[in-house]
Order: sequence, then structure tokens, then C-alpha cells
Amino acid sequence: MKAAFYHRDKEISVGECMPVSPGIGEVRIQVSFCGVCGTDLHVYHGAMDQRVSNPQILGHEMSGEIVELGEGVADWAKGDRVAVRPLAPCNECPTCKRGHGYICPKLKFIGLDTPGAFQSSWTVPAYTLHRLPDNVPLKFGSLVEPIAVACHDVRLGQVKDGERVVVIGGGPIGMLNALVARHKGAEVIVSEVNPFRIGMARSLGFDAVNPGETDLVKYVEDKTNGDGVDVVFEVSGTSIGVATMTRLLRVRGRVVLVAVHPKPREVDLHRFFWRELQLIAVRVYEAEDYDEALALIASGKVPFEKLITDVRPLEGLKQTFEEMTQGADIMKVLLECS
Amino acid sequence: MKAAFYHRDKEISVGECMPVSPGIGEVRIQVSFCGVCGTDLHVYHGAMDQRVSNPQILGHEMSGEIVELGEGVADWAKGDRVAVRPLAPCNECPTCKRGHGYICPKLKFIGLDTPGAFQSSWTVPAYTLHRLPDNVPLKFGSLVEPIAVACHDVRLGQVKDGERVVVIGGGPIGMLNALVARHKGAEVIVSEVNPFRIGMARSLGFDAVNPGETDLVKYVEDKTNGDGVDVVFEVSGTSIGVATMTRLLRVRGRVVLVAVHPKPREVDLHRFFWRELQLIAVRVYEAEDYDEALALIASGKVPFEKLITDVRPLEGLKQTFEEMTQGADIMKVLLECS
Repeated sequence: MKAAFYHRDKEISVGECMPVSPGIGEVRIQVSFCGVCGTDLHVYHGAMDQRVSNPQILGHEMSGEIVELGEGVADWAKGDRVAVRPLAPCNECPTCKRGHGYICPKLKFIGLDTPGAFQSSWTVPAYTLHRLPDNVPLKFGSLVEPIAVACHDVRLGQVKDGERVVVIGGGPIGMLNALVARHKGAEVIVSEVNPFRIGMARSLGFDAVNPGETDLVKYVEDKTNGDGVDVVFEVSGTSIGVATMTRLLRVRGRVVLVAVHPKPREVDLHRFFWRELQLIAVRVYEAEDYDEALALIASGKVPFEKLITDVRPLEGLKQTFEEMTQGADIMKVLLECS
Repeated sequence: MKAAFYHRDKEISVGECMPVSPGIGEVRIQVSFCGVCGTDLHVYHGAMDQRVSNPQILGHEMSGEIVELGEGVADWAKGDRVAVRPLAPCNECPTCKRGHGYICPKLKFIGLDTPGAFQSSWTVPAYTLHRLPDNVPLKFGSLVEPIAVACHDVRLGQVKDGERVVVIGGGPIGMLNALVARHKGAEVIVSEVNPFRIGMARSLGFDAVNPGETDLVKYVEDKTNGDGVDVVFEVSGTSIGVATMTRLLRVRGRVVLVAVHPKPREVDLHRFFWRELQLIAVRVYEAEDYDEALALIASGKVPFEKLITDVRPLEGLKQTFEEMTQGADIMKVLLECS
């Protein structure tokens, strides 16, 4: 079997490794596809070396088939087609006891804190498994993880039918937020500067605005007769995104904070106060978000698969990271792991 | 009759003026008491001269008796004891149509944008009136407005029985937030630097911490076994308050943003993201908050009246502003207006 290893800043190797026998409560999965995520890119750039051991196998947006069962695994069988929800909470702290184990302060993220799915054979706890519906091909099944992110974001943002939404940042997660929000009945504007992403947003039927060319605040004002939109998803991770988000919202509108902002940002708290805005920060997903994501894929009602721009062998990981860094004409890249 | 006039930066005069006959749908009230608010102080310092005309009669935390009815006022009679909810929405914009007229972008705040209650005789639209329960003395009735602020803040913050709360800033609004949150069953810590206010918080039975002497973050960590509190009310209006608020909260905790922060503040958005925190900004009140505030006063179950440190003649307005500026040993000062 083979695996892709992250060594240090921009160093990736692909080589042989041994399958890990599943322990009690674990299963071994033959990994079919694994998508490359922005977090993986972050690791590739050395930004998470304090957290990620060295070498490490990354990857968590996967699909595959169970090939071996550990002791005590009752509900699964060899050949089951699955995706993994890669979260290992401590199950003991107050956060876990309140039912929020998915963001437990001691959470281990499988694929960062422990080995991930950029390998042919992956051994994980059975409690992380979700079954792929029969009509979902393994290729699309690997989209469950990022779609579940979007389902979580849209659910916590309480997006309702008929609401108006701006998504700031049209990368994979922004685009998925746009697709899921539209599926809920929202009218969505995507703000994005990359021409390839703008083109994809438009091909998916979104009103896409390049804020480098068009005054987004004025555009939204005109479009809403000065009222503002109901919800803004901040997915850009930029200071300009944060400065803009508060200016787009109607009175009592909501910001869904999706992006990572490593440093404190200047936020217009007066605008928050004056309009009674809400900021709802969101991270990862709960089991129900996976269930919703799988049902959405199975329904065929949302063209998620159009986000897959490339399917490459595992050896294509480094090239993919480089293209993501350069802002190349790609959206979601899947790696074939077996 | 007499009135207190604001002229310009720190200039106040008290003089004679003529009662205004109530127009259609209006009533004239003999004002009994009117509290001095932080917003009035802000005007006194010239900070709102762009908005407040000159001279202007300030004041909105009032109680009084109806002495004259305009045409078409059906539900009220002379002698009725009332408080005014000093909000005049446009009733036409999308915000008003969604039922959020209390923060309508074209809202006129009566007592800032139009003359207020620092006068013996005040003429206002009848739709602003709330009836004082029979057992509520006029003196306590003038507390309805700031108590309604706290009822609104606690309601939007969804404070629940058994939750742990930190109030950052122990002035009148902070203290009222603490009292109302405790009435809902919350355990409340008040963070305040002013010794007089700390003493009052303690005399009201609160756990009061001076963050200049005690490490508030560590105090809360110790008190909650490292978990954090459920809700923080940011009522200080300071950058240190904003820097601290995110460090006190448990995973999925809420910040209720009460204070005015005129300039953008650095906010730890990473902490928001990492713990899925929410920021709920709040302003003024709705009719139901007045109803709740009046019911709370009438119940006698919350010692609101202890916040009244002084009752002064209308001529005491300037001195009160000066004492508020200096951080003197006062909490809520009422002026006798008739």
C-alpha cells in the first residue's frame, strides 16, 4: 500500500507503508478518493507544524470500502461503502457532556492530529463512520465532509426560504455554502476576485460579483432597495471581508463566520450595536450535518459534483498544493488513493 | 413650567418654557421623575452635536401623570400614571414591516431627536405610553426605561436558569443586566474597577471582581473548572472589555454586546471560530421588554430601587453630569421635574 507523507514546509513524499490492523472498535478502510482541503494546504505551508507531527499522513475528505473489522464492531461489514467524520472528542469534558463534542477543546482531528486518508488503507474508529447511500458513487461520496461543513454553517446561520445571502469568498467551502443556502430557498450573491471561481459561480447560476471591480456594498444596497441582506457568510479570511460583512446586512442580520482569522481583526462593533447584528461562528460539523449532506448528495438536487475539477493519482498531491497556492484554475481536486 | 436645556459642550441652563398642547394622538404629561442616562452624558460632552439640535431638552427615563389629552386619544385618561417608551419608528421601511421598528434605521429617539423629559410638562404620542401598575410609585416607575434595556439584553442573550454570566462593566445598565440575569436564575459575576460600584455590586449580593487587581480570566477559569461561562455581557465600552470577553466563554458561549464602541475594535475572531462563540448585539427595547420591566418592578422581587443613589431637583442636572464624568459615588440619579 502507499501513502503521501507531509514532512515539513512544502515537502511531500509518496511511498510504501504498512496497513494498520484495526484495534477494538476500529475498522480498516480501503480509501477510494480523498479531496484536498484548505486545511491540508495550511499544513503544507508549515503553518501548523506545532500541531502536526512529522512525518504525517494528511487527508480527511474521503470515501472508501471497509476491508477489515476490529473486535467489537457490530454494525458494519466488509464491503460497506463509507465516509469518515474525522472527529475524536474526549467524551469527558463539560463541552462533550453538553453534546458539543464535535468542538470539544481536547478534540483530536483525525488526519491532522492522527494519520489521515491520503493512503490506500486507513484504520479509524467505527464511531466515525457514515454509510454512503447506494446511489452515491464513491467519487461523490468523498465530498460529504466539505458538504457537511456547509450544512452545519447554513443550519447554525438559520438560513430560511426567501432570505437574501452574500457569500464572501468563492472557494470550495464558500461555493458549498452558496449551494446549500440556495437549496434552502435563499437568493445568493457570491463575492469573489478569482476569475476562474467567478466563472464557476456563474456557471452554477449564482449572481457573482468581483469586489475589485464592482462596489459590493452599493451593489447590495441597490439590489435590496437600501435594506441589506439577511445573512453574510464570511469565508474569505481577509480583513476586507470582515470590514465589508457588517455593511451588507439588514437590521438584525446575521454574519456566519466560517473562515479562519488567525489574528484579531478590527470589527465595526458600532454597526453590530446599531443594527442589532449577530455573529455566529461555525466550525466543522455534527453527525446530523453528515446525514443531511449524504441525503442532499443522494437527492441529486444540488450540482455538487460540478465543483470537482480534477481527479488525480495520490502522487499529484504536491502539484495540487502548488496550484492551490497559485490560485490556479481548480476548485475541488480529488486524489485516487487505491 | 420649567425645563433644562442643553446648549453646547457642557452648557446646561434651567429656565421657563411653555407647555406644548397635545396634537392629534398625543398626550401631555406632568413629568414626576426623570433619570439621567449615559447617553444624556454623551450629549452633554458635545459628542452628539451632529444629531442633537441646539438648544435641546434631554431626558427619557421618566414617569409622570397625564394632564391633557389630544384629539383621538381613546385609551388614556387624565391622571393616568405612565412611563414613555421614547421610540418613534417610521413604520414604513422594511425593518418596521418585519416588526423591528424599535431599531428602524429612520428611528427618532424622543429626548434626543425631539424634546425630552427634563421638563415639568412633556407632550408625546400616546402610542409611546405604558401604564404604571398601581403599586409602583412614580419614583420607581422612572426606572422602567433602563430596566427594559436590561430585559431586552437578557432576553436576546437567551439567559437561562442555572447559567453562569459575567457582566463586564458595573454601571447602571451593567448592574441592571446583572439583576435581571440573576432573576432568570443565572449566577452572575460583575467585573468593575470603580470601588463605589464594586461596593454596590457586593451589597446587592453579586460576586464582584476588580480586573485591575484580580486576573478575571483566571478567576473565571478557576470558578468554572476551566470550562468558562455561558454568557458575557460587554457593557464597559472598552477595548480591554472586548479583548477579555472572548476569553471568559465556554465553547458555544454568547457575548451580549450592550456597550457602544464608536470605533472598530480588534476582536479575537479565531477564538470565536474555535469555540463557536456567538455575538449578539442589542439596543433599546421592544414593547414586551417594557411590559416585563413593569411586571418585574411590581413584583418587588428585584431590588432595583437600591440603584437610586440620589434624587435631585431639575437644577441638579449639570452637577450630575459632572459627577458622572468624574466617576463620583453615584449610581442612578433621578431629577424631580415638577
